[in-house]
Amino acid sequence: MIVPHPRLSINQATITRTTVAEAVRVTKDAGVGAIGLWREQVQEAGLAESARIVAGSGLRYSTHCRGGWFTAEEGPVRRAALDDNRVAIEETATLAAAGAPGSRAVLVLVVGGLPEGSRDLAGARARVRDAVAELAPDAEAAGVTLALEPLHPMYASDRSVLSTLPQALDIAAGFDPAVVGVAVDTFHLWWDPDVLAHIGRAGREGRIAAYQVCDWRTPLEADNLLSRHYPGDGVIDFGPLTRAVEAAGYDGDVEVELLNQAIWDAPPAEAVRRTVAGFGRAVAPHLG
Amino acid sequence: MIVPHPRLSINQATITRTTVAEAVRVTKDAGVGAIGLWREQVQEAGLAESARIVAGSGLRYSTHCRGGWFTAEEGPVRRAALDDNRVAIEETATLAAAGAPGSRAVLVLVVGGLPEGSRDLAGARARVRDAVAELAPDAEAAGVTLALEPLHPMYASDRSVLSTLPQALDIAAGFDPAVVGVAVDTFHLWWDPDVLAHIGRAGREGRIAAYQVCDWRTPLEADNLLSRHYPGDGVIDFGPLTRAVEAAGYDGDVEVELLNQAIWDAPPAEAVRRTVAGFGRAVAPHLG
Repeated sequence: MIVPHPRLSINQATITRTTVAEAVRVTKDAGVGAIGLWREQVQEAGLAESARIVAGSGLRYSTHCRGGWFTAEEGPVRRAALDDNRVAIEETATLAAAGAPGSRAVLVLVVGGLPEGSRDLAGARARVRDAVAELAPDAEAAGVTLALEPLHPMYASDRSVLSTLPQALDIAAGFDPAVVGVAVDTFHLWWDPDVLAHIGRAGREGRIAAYQVCDWRTPLEADNLLSRHYPGDGVIDFGPLTRAVEAAGYDGDVEVELLNQAIWDAPPAEAVRRTVAGFGRAVAPHLG
Repeated sequence: MIVPHPRLSINQATITRTTVAEAVRVTKDAGVGAIGLWREQVQEAGLAESARIVAGSGLRYSTHCRGGWFTAEEGPVRRAALDDNRVAIEETATLAAAGAPGSRAVLVLVVGGLPEGSRDLAGARARVRDAVAELAPDAEAAGVTLALEPLHPMYASDRSVLSTLPQALDIAAGFDPAVVGVAVDTFHLWWDPDVLAHIGRAGREGRIAAYQVCDWRTPLEADNLLSRHYPGDGVIDFGPLTRAVEAAGYDGDVEVELLNQAIWDAPPAEAVRRTVAGFGRAVAPHLG
């Protein structure tokens, strides 16, 4: 068995059909030291029970996935989204507190796309900023960092109007770095000609709250949401990106989050085993 | 019948199953004033015959599609690609000379993705610059403008390592604007938070050699290459983009280039009719 890198964390999206208990078990059984759970499964198990399972596992908690989806115009839908994010903040604080030392209270935010029927991209982006401003006091009170995640531009209309790292950093700039940071995900950012400089800026501004690695390969799957691959199975050169994140001062866990039907169809233990192997080959050599 | 906007041009990719003669006929029959042809069909008809057809039509020639595909490392494949681009330059000059007054000798360049098995994105991008430097003297001698087209980042690995307008402008900066320019395509650039500023820069630097409009809609088609829609059928706000291109000084024809299986399956005359209508509603009101 390949010994997992000590900073590897399994994001539950990689083994999405698991319950919290199952996800924690296969992660621990593989010798991995950290996990990030998804809200759907946490709510299914219940927050208290999820926290109990995490606490009993000895795993670190790396991120909570995910908040966001707050690009709607003012009204009940927007209010409900913001309230739901407040719940997510509390979940994050609870689960991070239950994790082993080194856990991080980081809530990843996928901000959402254009509201149905809208073409006002600039307006949606402005409402992201407004939402962060509204949620920041709650995050601060809970000791949680909101991690703005720029998603690949192919998701700009339906999942995330936040498309680049500078965009995320510009929003974060108005807030304490302990409260609002960014998530760096290789799948979303690898194509950017200036990504290394942007990561450097994120480091100087103290904003890197999460680092996620997964690979890009074409042709994309018919459902482009499910087009992520084990590190090393695609075309991303993890060396420069990982060294840049390291040089930027990020020393936390590194998550692998693979939305991919074939991986979901595999037994979770096998998905974790292959994640450990891919990470070991493609990412670990570049970690300090 | 809707009267086509005088600056609309039909790119042959919208009616890809046509011969040159058919493409010219349906374009002219619809009352459209300009056309851009594709190399495959031009070579099938023969360059001299294609030029004769264009000359007889009274249509302006807007762009020739397409050169590029020169990211290979040095060797026979790269040499063949560069030689083929020299042929494309000659085709462009010949067809533009055959077109009505107002024709433009513009060769659109889709630069190509990563070579098979490569993860060296920076290297591939450097070879784009080298290829442009090699082809510029040929283009200048022929009176042709090479239009570097940044493609959507979802094509970075397999079709175009050129992903943003600044990247294209930085390459173009070393050359006479009459020889190396850029192509602005709404489908590829609409998501960019700074796209209006980038278009402004392109104008100041005299680089806008082509403006293409088509729409973005999700979910994308299973083959994401074929995901383009008639203007107005998606989420792109053509107002700010078109006004920025106008303000940047571009006064040439505006092409609609729709790679989409359903559009290809329609009779070409219907595709042109719907293009005229969509352009009239979504784009024309923003042209000076």
